[in-house]
Amino acid sequence: MLALSYISPLIRVAREGDRSFTVTISASEKLSDIRVALSVKLVKKLKFRVKTLNFSSGKPLVVLDDEAAADMGVRPHERVSLRFNSREVIALVNVAWQIPRDIVLVNDEVVEGLGVEEGDYVEVELAPMPDSLRYIRDLLRGARLGYDEIKRIVEDIVEDKVSEVELTALVTAIDQRGMGVDEAYYFSLAMVETGEVLDLGVEPILDKHSIGGVPGDKTSLILVPVIASLGYYIPKTSSRAITSPAGTADRAEVLMPVTLSLDEMREVVLKTRGCIVWGGALHIAPADDKIIRVEYPLSIDPFLVPSIMAKKKAVGSTHVVIDIPVGRGAKVKTIGEAHYLAREIIEVGRRLGIEVACALTVGEQPVGYTAGPVLEAREALETLMGRGPRDLVDKVTSIAGVLLEMIGVERGKQVALEAIRSGRALAKLREIIEAQGGDPNVRPEDLPTGEHTYTVRADRRGVVMWINNKLIASLARAAGAPKDRGAGIELHVKLGDNVEEGAPLLTIYREYGSKLQAAEKLLEELKPIGVGRPESEMLIEKVPTLVPHERLPIIER
Amino acid sequence: MLALSYISPLIRVAREGDRSFTVTISASEKLSDIRVALSVKLVKKLKFRVKTLNFSSGKPLVVLDDEAAADMGVRPHERVSLRFNSREVIALVNVAWQIPRDIVLVNDEVVEGLGVEEGDYVEVELAPMPDSLRYIRDLLRGARLGYDEIKRIVEDIVEDKVSEVELTALVTAIDQRGMGVDEAYYFSLAMVETGEVLDLGVEPILDKHSIGGVPGDKTSLILVPVIASLGYYIPKTSSRAITSPAGTADRAEVLMPVTLSLDEMREVVLKTRGCIVWGGALHIAPADDKIIRVEYPLSIDPFLVPSIMAKKKAVGSTHVVIDIPVGRGAKVKTIGEAHYLAREIIEVGRRLGIEVACALTVGEQPVGYTAGPVLEAREALETLMGRGPRDLVDKVTSIAGVLLEMIGVERGKQVALEAIRSGRALAKLREIIEAQGGDPNVRPEDLPTGEHTYTVRADRRGVVMWINNKLIASLARAAGAPKDRGAGIELHVKLGDNVEEGAPLLTIYREYGSKLQAAEKLLEELKPIGVGRPESEMLIEKVPTLVPHERLPIIER
Repeated sequence: MLALSYISPLIRVAREGDRSFTVTISASEKLSDIRVALSVKLVKKLKFRVKTLNFSSGKPLVVLDDEAAADMGVRPHERVSLRFNSREVIALVNVAWQIPRDIVLVNDEVVEGLGVEEGDYVEVELAPMPDSLRYIRDLLRGARLGYDEIKRIVEDIVEDKVSEVELTALVTAIDQRGMGVDEAYYFSLAMVETGEVLDLGVEPILDKHSIGGVPGDKTSLILVPVIASLGYYIPKTSSRAITSPAGTADRAEVLMPVTLSLDEMREVVLKTRGCIVWGGALHIAPADDKIIRVEYPLSIDPFLVPSIMAKKKAVGSTHVVIDIPVGRGAKVKTIGEAHYLAREIIEVGRRLGIEVACALTVGEQPVGYTAGPVLEAREALETLMGRGPRDLVDKVTSIAGVLLEMIGVERGKQVALEAIRSGRALAKLREIIEAQGGDPNVRPEDLPTGEHTYTVRADRRGVVMWINNKLIASLARAAGAPKDRGAGIELHVKLGDNVEEGAPLLTIYREYGSKLQAAEKLLEELKPIGVGRPESEMLIEKVPTLVPHERLPIIER
Repeated sequence: MLALSYISPLIRVAREGDRSFTVTISASEKLSDIRVALSVKLVKKLKFRVKTLNFSSGKPLVVLDDEAAADMGVRPHERVSLRFNSREVIALVNVAWQIPRDIVLVNDEVVEGLGVEEGDYVEVELAPMPDSLRYIRDLLRGARLGYDEIKRIVEDIVEDKVSEVELTALVTAIDQRGMGVDEAYYFSLAMVETGEVLDLGVEPILDKHSIGGVPGDKTSLILVPVIASLGYYIPKTSSRAITSPAGTADRAEVLMPVTLSLDEMREVVLKTRGCIVWGGALHIAPADDKIIRVEYPLSIDPFLVPSIMAKKKAVGSTHVVIDIPVGRGAKVKTIGEAHYLAREIIEVGRRLGIEVACALTVGEQPVGYTAGPVLEAREALETLMGRGPRDLVDKVTSIAGVLLEMIGVERGKQVALEAIRSGRALAKLREIIEAQGGDPNVRPEDLPTGEHTYTVRADRRGVVMWINNKLIASLARAAGAPKDRGAGIELHVKLGDNVEEGAPLLTIYREYGSKLQAAEKLLEELKPIGVGRPESEMLIEKVPTLVPHERLPIIER
């Protein structure tokens, strides 16, 4: 016992403060008794009268008066156990003031969990710290977590047992110190295991995903029917836009319903070999949705790899191509960075039993000429009709080619091109549209774009030097996309084009109102598209002298 | 304009997603117009009927229905502006379900800020992102922040404009990547400037602080009267226990009121030259209290240096000694670590215009023989009566000596020792007690310790090899300290003592109940004090083979 009691309490207690005993159990059977015994004194049990908040917030939540909480030794963000009759609920504690000391405010989850009504009396006491919090604290201390620990963290995230502070700390710490391949694999696997999975009972299952960041990328909408038309299974799940003018789900929704259940999705795929559905309704890798809720306000994305790979694994993919757009305006700025990311994605895939290839693609400008749900759906249809822009066709067929060659198809790019030229891919898309409940006979011209348009023109003669992806996306969203499906942006030029003064550069489409008019003249000053003479204009920007010297340049971050 | 629009929107928008325009203003006057213009379309304004939550949570807070929020383009953790008549309040958004779509639940802060009542209709729209969030995002990206940025962050923390997710991300990121001297200085200064300050109009002003971590450290309670009795000003603010059995404020409160206002504190110090008051009531460096609220559940402490130095600066200290206890059971484990920390503290002090010295002290075991408010107050009195334990006397006089020599007093340690021997320090403490409203004639035996005691005895003959600080602290808290003032622990041995089998090692004092009895036999197994034969017992611990291989050893973390 000497040895044990020498180290274990030291390490553990060091990380536990006054409720240390919850940890040392692992070290000694007997210690669990002492914890129980001591916690009798440590933890004070009080009776509270229930007042209902009448809302649901996903997880059991209570609001206690500051002093009542302190009296129980409960701090904000800790958990309490509430008991009523023989039922128990563990809830996160919010502390407030001006609440009668004998009142506990509870949300719907607590009401349902306990079966209480306003006015009932419940017993409240401090709940022991969940394992997941202990592991998150380990991670903050630099420990690399093993699978069992990450599995527990992910389970608790899914079951809403992890507080916002804890989840944010986890996400931020991983963002700061990076996620190794081991952790990326463990998180991917745990995310799969804590959600629904699709089992088609067939092989191979092909899939494609882009890490995103480039506006107007309607590749999937075209690639899925191409692959399916060749007889291969491709159960594509996709996301809605968060900060872009349209996600694949938003684009596809112009043509067909995308909110399918997992069973409906299975039916569609078994019938047509392909589908394009919104992943959000499928409950696959649900942990990811909760992680994104804290990533978004911080605008960080440390779970990129598990978030993508878990969803591929969950639908049973055996061969996957991950598109990594590279360029100034993309998520990945340099080819060097792209190689690091690709190696990690491929290795995580290998461990998940998925054969993965990555495609580094040009991400300096939008793909094709449109951004916004309707505009992009139209462009996708046009492309399948053989009238697509060259860069879009090349991207679709290149990625399809990589995917086809992974399963032994020779000259994959040619095969994919032929599927488009022959019209088989278009026919397949109409099949999928019909299977998902859309109108199979839809024509591009049937899809209404916003009536209100404004065209930005070149204020000088020159070469198109750059197209600002993020600004294009922002303008399209400012115009109403993706909520207003007909809103968006159409480009008239691409990089390297020569333009005369006054030539149209892009047109903004809006469904409503003239509210933008005041701004429209100013739009030109924002220069979403830059026309100049590279050879004679070297100055990029003059940074005013007042910038604090500590500030690192972050253009490449 | 080419240059500007080339980089700025790229960087900025990249970090802003769809509400990018709020950022680019800095780059161009005109852009502010376009932001306003575009935001008309970006931001949707809705009317909601007010329902009151009837509690106060420090910052304005609203709860909106999931869909109503989405409809406005508002996500959880973002901010909305609420308008009623001509008044506006910015509130953080919580999203919930099962709320009528036209209802907004508001807390007391919103009710007061707007002057609304239940049933009133308010206008709600997405509020622009605060600068502080932008700077927090910069920091997450690796930017070193300048003073102006840190000042804005701290201001927003104090004014509760920073959401929990944002504050947690800030604290976690700094914990992960470390806080440089520049940032430590900027945070310290900003914390001082956003709180109350004490101006005594005298010099020098001496002060002492310990970074903590060692139980039973009643040094300040003795050092303050020693210094004051020598005629020097020492306006000591102290904290209450968070995870320890007693903070200096808890110890002092046994002898006198410690919850004073800044004016009362000034009065006491000008009259007696010293004081020992609770910092929490003074509103100095208030940002720190809010930061601690998220540090606590994560059990991290990245703001250690600003948190200490800001409070020293706020009371006008000119000469300060920072005590850094070093040892296995302390916050700082090795002398090497201690040197790093000391250098940082000293440099931050220099920039704040404070002359700082650090004292590395033995932190392997409790200071003196007691832990717990009453037990420690008694030991402090005994010490000033000349009956103190040698380690405690040595620590007090050594630190006092360093402090005195900083202002040119020779043989400082001797001078301090003499102040105790002569009884002048005791007389000074009684003066301070009286000035703060306590009983100046208090005697150690007047202070009641817990009636219920249990003594842990040595189960073998040997040498005291180690005393587990954290476990001593946990046992004292388990016994009821600091809430039960009489509760705590008295040690009967210290490191290196030889003990016979059955000799008393420590006694636990409790005020109430026999609840611990079931546990008391087990206490011995926890071995808060280890007796053994170092020369013949080399094995520290056997780690079971199942520990995941990714796990780093974290004993020194």
